[in-house]
Amino acid sequence: MEKTDIFDVAIVGYGPAGVTAGIYAARKKLRVLLIGELSGGEVRNSGEIENWPGDGATTGNELADKLATHLRSHSEEVTVVEKKVSKIVKNGDVFSIESDNQSWQSKTVIYATGRHPRMLNVPGEADMRNRGVSYCATCDAPIFSGKKVAVVGGGNTAAEAVIMLQKIASEIYVVQLLESLTADPVLIENFVSDEKVKIIYNAQTTAIEGDVMVNRLRFLDTKTKEEKALDVDGIFVLIGAVPNTQPVKDLLPLDKMGAIPADRYGVTSLPGFFAAGDVTDIRDAQIVVAAGHGCSAALSAGDYIARMGR
Amino acid sequence: MEKTDIFDVAIVGYGPAGVTAGIYAARKKLRVLLIGELSGGEVRNSGEIENWPGDGATTGNELADKLATHLRSHSEEVTVVEKKVSKIVKNGDVFSIESDNQSWQSKTVIYATGRHPRMLNVPGEADMRNRGVSYCATCDAPIFSGKKVAVVGGGNTAAEAVIMLQKIASEIYVVQLLESLTADPVLIENFVSDEKVKIIYNAQTTAIEGDVMVNRLRFLDTKTKEEKALDVDGIFVLIGAVPNTQPVKDLLPLDKMGAIPADRYGVTSLPGFFAAGDVTDIRDAQIVVAAGHGCSAALSAGDYIARMGR
Repeated sequence: MEKTDIFDVAIVGYGPAGVTAGIYAARKKLRVLLIGELSGGEVRNSGEIENWPGDGATTGNELADKLATHLRSHSEEVTVVEKKVSKIVKNGDVFSIESDNQSWQSKTVIYATGRHPRMLNVPGEADMRNRGVSYCATCDAPIFSGKKVAVVGGGNTAAEAVIMLQKIASEIYVVQLLESLTADPVLIENFVSDEKVKIIYNAQTTAIEGDVMVNRLRFLDTKTKEEKALDVDGIFVLIGAVPNTQPVKDLLPLDKMGAIPADRYGVTSLPGFFAAGDVTDIRDAQIVVAAGHGCSAALSAGDYIARMGR
Repeated sequence: MEKTDIFDVAIVGYGPAGVTAGIYAARKKLRVLLIGELSGGEVRNSGEIENWPGDGATTGNELADKLATHLRSHSEEVTVVEKKVSKIVKNGDVFSIESDNQSWQSKTVIYATGRHPRMLNVPGEADMRNRGVSYCATCDAPIFSGKKVAVVGGGNTAAEAVIMLQKIASEIYVVQLLESLTADPVLIENFVSDEKVKIIYNAQTTAIEGDVMVNRLRFLDTKTKEEKALDVDGIFVLIGAVPNTQPVKDLLPLDKMGAIPADRYGVTSLPGFFAAGDVTDIRDAQIVVAAGHGCSAALSAGDYIARMGR
């Protein structure tokens, strides 16, 4: 393919939203480019998955592989490039998608890069990253066999980490800022009466300490104002996610969380630029919701191209 | 279960939206009733399915079975009743879901009954139903082995029927009201150069004739105003779908197509009553979009119940 060629749709992101958009755009016989670093996106970091409809029990890797295989079955219409996009600009009616020293042109973009884990931004956190501090239980839980760990957070991702660590770690502290856990009850019931798991509420993490490896988490009890510490060998920080919008921050307005405002059909404020899934201001960060949003964004992009008469 | 018991969520409809809502509501540990006539809903009439993400080639029956199995794995939380709902009313804060002589009470409803095929409403159509007139190619195509058939319509459902009939019928007329087909190009390319398939544009079906079985389709050429006829043994009417909203027509306002206005999260104008998938005014009647919508509706219903403090 020549650089001067112009794709109909450039999909940025290789997770469920991007892949579903790709499948639907291919079925419309559009010329599709899909660029993303990791097939499956955050799905690949998801461990056990029990809420992808029809697959009662699967894993992040299995689902990611299935999605990639389905997309690649449309090889006639879809070019897949496994790279990170650095910037997207619009020149006239054409988008330029830039990565390192390469760039691609497209009539439309479907931006579906998802979110990445949020950091605590406390002293010691950055230093101790990959030295006991982790943002992905699926990736790193096995390292802490027989060790004491802390899980910072109280949502579904944190709860899933606790469940995974129950079989691995010797002791698990759940360090939760709020007065209760916000995870689904179906998850919480797995560990709420496990003696190995100690849930600490109203706990604001203030520092992470260690030498070669992590050995302490310091926190403030926000009710008593007491400063406390936990001696741990590992810390999983699972407190939410940040939209991956760096490459488009100058292209269109973002909301205060850094997400792309987009309607249910993936339409944004910028003509020809569609967005889908967890990178948007969507309420529900669920795989099936992202996939449905990706489908709709592809149908919107197809309509846009048809209307432009190209 | 006593009649006086009240469910948290009554899901009406057993298709992808309803099943996904059921899975998510079960994971929230809500007490769920799911009522629907046919597991999979219209999915079961879908023949080959190539756009369910991750399953490059499956069938309506396979996908419907997978969805039902996944839902039924939550048997502790979900009661499944295979019945048709006749009416839903709201008494105070509680919904009553009625079917024949039975009724169930629930704090919330997720209404996900889908759509049914639209009729032409021309003379002879009702008389000849199941005597050569069909609204489901997957169900009835095999009957017309070696016969001449007409497919009325030009969208994806009509195109999928033509593809199915190519291997079965001796001659296929596509009777399309518009000047072009609206189906996906990826589908059309399968039959556009098949001599067995004859596409007639600007053709308005005016009557269906037959004795014991169908033998003629009459149509008007809307350009030349000529009246014409086709001698056929079977007629597939595939011209769109009508939302299944009869049981709720007095419960809340519907749009002019008879669909339930609902936002992307399944929220309707009636508190506690949520709706998802093809029965709503959603633009994209796609399985994965309906599933995503069902997920969001379940999360909305869960929030509603939590807010009500029950």
